[in-house]
Amino acid sequence: MARPKEFDRETALSNAMEVFGDHGYEGSSTEVLMREMGISRQSMYDTFGDKRRLYLEALQHYVADQVAGQIRTLNTSSSALKGLEAALLAFALKAADGPGCMGIGAICEFGRSDQEVTILIDTAEKTLRSALEHRIADAKAAGEICAEVDMRAAADFLTATFAAIKIAGRGGASLETLRNIARMAIRSLK
Amino acid sequence: MARPKEFDRETALSNAMEVFGDHGYEGSSTEVLMREMGISRQSMYDTFGDKRRLYLEALQHYVADQVAGQIRTLNTSSSALKGLEAALLAFALKAADGPGCMGIGAICEFGRSDQEVTILIDTAEKTLRSALEHRIADAKAAGEICAEVDMRAAADFLTATFAAIKIAGRGGASLETLRNIARMAIRSLK
Repeated sequence: MARPKEFDRETALSNAMEVFGDHGYEGSSTEVLMREMGISRQSMYDTFGDKRRLYLEALQHYVADQVAGQIRTLNTSSSALKGLEAALLAFALKAADGPGCMGIGAICEFGRSDQEVTILIDTAEKTLRSALEHRIADAKAAGEICAEVDMRAAADFLTATFAAIKIAGRGGASLETLRNIARMAIRSLK
Repeated sequence: MARPKEFDRETALSNAMEVFGDHGYEGSSTEVLMREMGISRQSMYDTFGDKRRLYLEALQHYVADQVAGQIRTLNTSSSALKGLEAALLAFALKAADGPGCMGIGAICEFGRSDQEVTILIDTAEKTLRSALEHRIADAKAAGEICAEVDMRAAADFLTATFAAIKIAGRGGASLETLRNIARMAIRSLK
């Protein structure tokens, strides 16, 4: 019996995210995408449109999943500072085996030259930053973070630290190195 | 009178670095490279070899230039902590107009899958890290950095912060945001 179409679509999209994360937009040929997604050229075009539409859909899912995961961990602890640390450490664990990253890959490859890519990246970043600002404000109110730390500067910094961890992991840094980056970032708030 | 060949080669290589920095390895076609380098296919092959050899030479020059600049700024001040801050702030200024980055682009695109790329990236990173460790040790000895800060953790963290600044700039962050990242990173040492 054939699998339901919904399931296949999700799996195929998830496989496309891996290909794009590893090779970027230009580096991912339609042939490799079809092979890894396990679908024919016709199914790919019928279901996702052309390579660019597939890329944009994959990027949207990737950054949405990633940010949702970050925000979930941010809010697991009643201590805001512990939540911030947990989010960075969980991200370090995920980055440790050097997976590709569609988000940073898109920033490297396109900068701000592609309007649709820019909107997706900016939306994800604004969502993460807003969640970070709330937790930083909570931590300041609870006296966990030094009063003189500027909330926006701290949010800029922590947003950038997530990217730093991902890049370091992709470059082969050990889990211990990634944890050092996370812990030092938290030190800056104290 | 024709320009000396040496000068042309350097300019052509520098233009190749810009193309690769903006579009990555896969995204840079030989046609665009030839056009931006202002040379014919034959000259390109005679002078640099194939696209891969050109990429590796451009990457080597790019990361060597970048690390040399970082280390120069690190050592401009007699205060080691001021040197560390100056290096991050100077890097923020360079990253503010969102230039492409061959180094981070190479890490995104290849991870550790290409041995020659990996050697170039690892060498640059080890060189920067070693210079950072020396300055961190100086700053600790001078009492500018908190005694409990682990030198290796701090070096891991500052190395990653350079990448964070570059990615944030490429993503469109303002100079003020990039300076916030640099200043917060320095805070973590105190």
